[in-house]
Amino acid sequence: MAVEASPLAKNWLADWFESKAYELGITSLIIVNSLLMVLETIPRIEMTWGPLLNTVQGIVVAIFVLELSLKLAAIRAHFFRSAWNWFDVVVVGVSILPATEAFAALRALRAVRLLRVISVRPSLRRVVEGFLNAIPNLGSVIVLLLLILFVFALLGTRLFGGTHPELFGTLGASLFSLFTVMTLEGWNDMAWDVMEIHRSAWIFFISFIMITTWAVLNLFIGVIVDSMQQHTRSEEAALEQKILEKQTDLAEEVRLLRGQLVSLRAALEPQFAAANIQAANDESVAPTASRPTQD
Amino acid sequence: MAVEASPLAKNWLADWFESKAYELGITSLIIVNSLLMVLETIPRIEMTWGPLLNTVQGIVVAIFVLELSLKLAAIRAHFFRSAWNWFDVVVVGVSILPATEAFAALRALRAVRLLRVISVRPSLRRVVEGFLNAIPNLGSVIVLLLLILFVFALLGTRLFGGTHPELFGTLGASLFSLFTVMTLEGWNDMAWDVMEIHRSAWIFFISFIMITTWAVLNLFIGVIVDSMQQHTRSEEAALEQKILEKQTDLAEEVRLLRGQLVSLRAALEPQFAAANIQAANDESVAPTASRPTQD
Amino acid sequence: MAVEASPLAKNWLADWFESKAYELGITSLIIVNSLLMVLETIPRIEMTWGPLLNTVQGIVVAIFVLELSLKLAAIRAHFFRSAWNWFDVVVVGVSILPATEAFAALRALRAVRLLRVISVRPSLRRVVEGFLNAIPNLGSVIVLLLLILFVFALLGTRLFGGTHPELFGTLGASLFSLFTVMTLEGWNDMAWDVMEIHRSAWIFFISFIMITTWAVLNLFIGVIVDSMQQHTRSEEAALEQKILEKQTDLAEEVRLLRGQLVSLRAALEPQFAAANIQAANDESVAPTASRPTQD
Amino acid sequence: MAVEASPLAKNWLADWFESKAYELGITSLIIVNSLLMVLETIPRIEMTWGPLLNTVQGIVVAIFVLELSLKLAAIRAHFFRSAWNWFDVVVVGVSILPATEAFAALRALRAVRLLRVISVRPSLRRVVEGFLNAIPNLGSVIVLLLLILFVFALLGTRLFGGTHPELFGTLGASLFSLFTVMTLEGWNDMAWDVMEIHRSAWIFFISFIMITTWAVLNLFIGVIVDSMQQHTRSEEAALEQKILEKQTDLAEEVRLLRGQLVSLRAALEPQFAAANIQAANDESVAPTASRPTQD
Repeated sequence: MAVEASPLAKNWLADWFESKAYELGITSLIIVNSLLMVLETIPRIEMTWGPLLNTVQGIVVAIFVLELSLKLAAIRAHFFRSAWNWFDVVVVGVSILPATEAFAALRALRAVRLLRVISVRPSLRRVVEGFLNAIPNLGSVIVLLLLILFVFALLGTRLFGGTHPELFGTLGASLFSLFTVMTLEGWNDMAWDVMEIHRSAWIFFISFIMITTWAVLNLFIGVIVDSMQQHTRSEEAALEQKILEKQTDLAEEVRLLRGQLVSLRAALEPQFAAANIQAANDESVAPTASRPTQD
Repeated sequence: MAVEASPLAKNWLADWFESKAYELGITSLIIVNSLLMVLETIPRIEMTWGPLLNTVQGIVVAIFVLELSLKLAAIRAHFFRSAWNWFDVVVVGVSILPATEAFAALRALRAVRLLRVISVRPSLRRVVEGFLNAIPNLGSVIVLLLLILFVFALLGTRLFGGTHPELFGTLGASLFSLFTVMTLEGWNDMAWDVMEIHRSAWIFFISFIMITTWAVLNLFIGVIVDSMQQHTRSEEAALEQKILEKQTDLAEEVRLLRGQLVSLRAALEPQFAAANIQAANDESVAPTASRPTQD
Repeated sequence: MAVEASPLAKNWLADWFESKAYELGITSLIIVNSLLMVLETIPRIEMTWGPLLNTVQGIVVAIFVLELSLKLAAIRAHFFRSAWNWFDVVVVGVSILPATEAFAALRALRAVRLLRVISVRPSLRRVVEGFLNAIPNLGSVIVLLLLILFVFALLGTRLFGGTHPELFGTLGASLFSLFTVMTLEGWNDMAWDVMEIHRSAWIFFISFIMITTWAVLNLFIGVIVDSMQQHTRSEEAALEQKILEKQTDLAEEVRLLRGQLVSLRAALEPQFAAANIQAANDESVAPTASRPTQD
Repeated sequence: MAVEASPLAKNWLADWFESKAYELGITSLIIVNSLLMVLETIPRIEMTWGPLLNTVQGIVVAIFVLELSLKLAAIRAHFFRSAWNWFDVVVVGVSILPATEAFAALRALRAVRLLRVISVRPSLRRVVEGFLNAIPNLGSVIVLLLLILFVFALLGTRLFGGTHPELFGTLGASLFSLFTVMTLEGWNDMAWDVMEIHRSAWIFFISFIMITTWAVLNLFIGVIVDSMQQHTRSEEAALEQKILEKQTDLAEEVRLLRGQLVSLRAALEPQFAAANIQAANDESVAPTASRPTQD
């Protein structure tokens, strides 16, 4: 509790993390960072200014770490509830690793840090959320697609693994080869290659292409229909709303009409009484609204 | 009748085949089986543990056969009515064949057994049914596409068969070549090849690509429109339902109103009679509802 | 007038050309013909049975010619009004040509004759008509696409024609090359080739791909939206119909109600008269329906 | 002010620039120009008629320059408000440049002049405007796509730049390579190449393909949904219009009905007064329309 910021400071910070200024600040930092990264890819500049570029980038990372720590301190309870904060932690975390280790791959992954611009800018965040939201609805189609890929990979490994080890030698190689077939890229060369030895291999390739194309098509249609529905639903709701409102107005008008009729009858009642009229058959025609004297 | 299960047992079995436990049991078996198949693709493991893997797979197949036999016994009459049971029989049947024969291809086909997961899990079953249901509506487009493919294959065989036997030597080769052209994969290399000798071959290829792309596009649009319709239809039905319900309420209100008016007239009738009023022109204005005394 | 069939025969013929039997007859002939054409592509069979196959095909063509002549005689005035009859004449006409001349290409074109199945079967005819109907709406997009292709072909011929004569030597070569780029097939190899000499050629290729992809996408969307509209329009019309019918019922109900009110007033009128009531302000409230005595 | 056309001339000119004759004139000029450009691509004709072709083209450009100057003079204030006039200026401007300089590339760009047909013909103009209008709505998706491309290009340059300088040597090379991967063209060859040294490069390629395919798909869906909405909105508005009109008619009918009832009550009022009826409870039922004497 000693190092924790006071409630006032926390609120002030929490507000600031929602502000336009914060968004702009981080965006500028990322732009600066990306420019530095672009400069780093030019060997001549990297050789002369390398250390300086590294230092500036270190400062940017330090600011990111500080900023995330402050955010954690400010909204402690809520910090890990937002998937975007997890995203920030991972993306910045990856940037710190290469500082400690010397792997080139990890060092390269620092570019991932630029993706922070997505979590900072609401419009980009919404696009990514839209992308991800579409996935659960498509769960079954994706599972089916993976199942087909897996079964064909097993088949391919067994059937062609011996003769074409590079393409179908292992399950991993088969999965990669079939993924390229799925993108239709170079599938004909691969098929010709395999068909030199296995003459009926075309059955394997054509059936795989037909099935996966069909599945991918259905996947895409799923996304289209899904996003269409979200749009039309709101529009139809508006149309419905208008019609129902108009109908409600009309119903109100009719109700007013009935009220007037009721009062008219009430006004006439004494006359009826004088004329000795029995209103017994009223009941059957309009049971709820009749007998205005009971109102 | 002697070996047949008793009705009680049959019901118990029939219920069990619909249960969540059965679904989970078969799914687990398939997952175990697929893991074994993955292990089999690794030469080192296959060499050492081959016989054991084979034995376990034999047990899995035995369970599948037993299970399908029990299902057949339990719901005898209904078993062959469901296409999914046929699917199961074929898929498991393919797995038994390699046990008797020694063809590598048939042995490889055992992987097909994993597709049983589709028939067992309702969500996957529904996706596949959705895929298949879309086909009949597209029958004419598919027939047209096959017709175009066939006519162009005949043309190709005649025109280029002599000079390019590998691509267009036989009708089968032409069909395969044109299928690759339809996927647009490597069509330019093929066209360049053929155009070296037949200078106007570009007419053949470009017209084929334009026609089939147009047909495939229309096929896809057919699927999109079809699945769109199914979705919007249910939504529009709901909207319609709401509006019609509201209108029915309103009509009820108006009917009540008329009822009241009728009773009002009935109440006044004696007065009219006293005043010697003829209500002859009533008839023409409201023939069905007038003359409340006739109700 | 001498050789013309009598009116009776013409009617009988015209009816027959619409019959299911005629459709089936032609379809069978085409299937037989296509089987013969398939046999012709197998060299061994062609060598032994060639003359026989040719004779049978000659008979099929003779039947087609006879049939079209009869049809022309039967519905003379209407024959050339249907585009499908033109289609038949062209398709069968192409089959007769090779009989007189010896060009291999024209002989191959006989396969086109099988397309007659489209004009004979209404379901296929409808699909093709659907395809063609979509085109006029897309006229502007197609013109724009051709314009872009043309301008880029001119640019390409000028810029790269000197150094890459095979790809961009003539306007025709450029158009073909750009068509392959439009299908995205092998565009990267072509771009690498050109970029070896013209370092900024990537601007040419990437801008061409972006613009044409965008245009093609819009072409496709046009077709989708168009066919969607045709489907939803009919569905919405049905929904509208139901709602409007219900509303008409309601309006009828309200009209009945008013009728009754009018008659009620008419009945009361004498009493009013007796009570010396002036109904002058009626006019302003309900000018059209008041004063029942005017009905 | 001296060389400026008089107001009368300006109006006459401004009208003429909107006329069908002007549209046709420019279109013919462009067609003539494009024919000349086609002739120029044929070396034999270019050699013999080159100077003549050049002169005629110079005349066409002169006409275009004159025409744009006149248009500027006629609608001075409005000229630069329309983006299409800017487009014309740029497109014609590019044609003048090569006359002064000798760069082959600039000379080739004269073909761009043919694009003027777009700004002249309203139907083409509308298509292009439709294309461009769709872009702002997709802004975020495009930014995201570029961001992903950029981050992967940085990653690629760092990871594979050293070993595959041709593909990933510089940031520009990486961007071009990844653009080809995005079109799926030759991505498998590139991946095989890189994977020979970097064994886990498939993660890079497959994740890039999955992410960009997903993003491009969403871009396309965005365009589809957008253009769908524009179409359905107008149709739904028509449907809504019809239903609401019918409802308004009905409401009018009901209002007439009430008016009649009001007048009926007014007529009866004196009788009520005679019968000493208190109409106090009227107020609560129909506060706005009751008490006709207050009208």
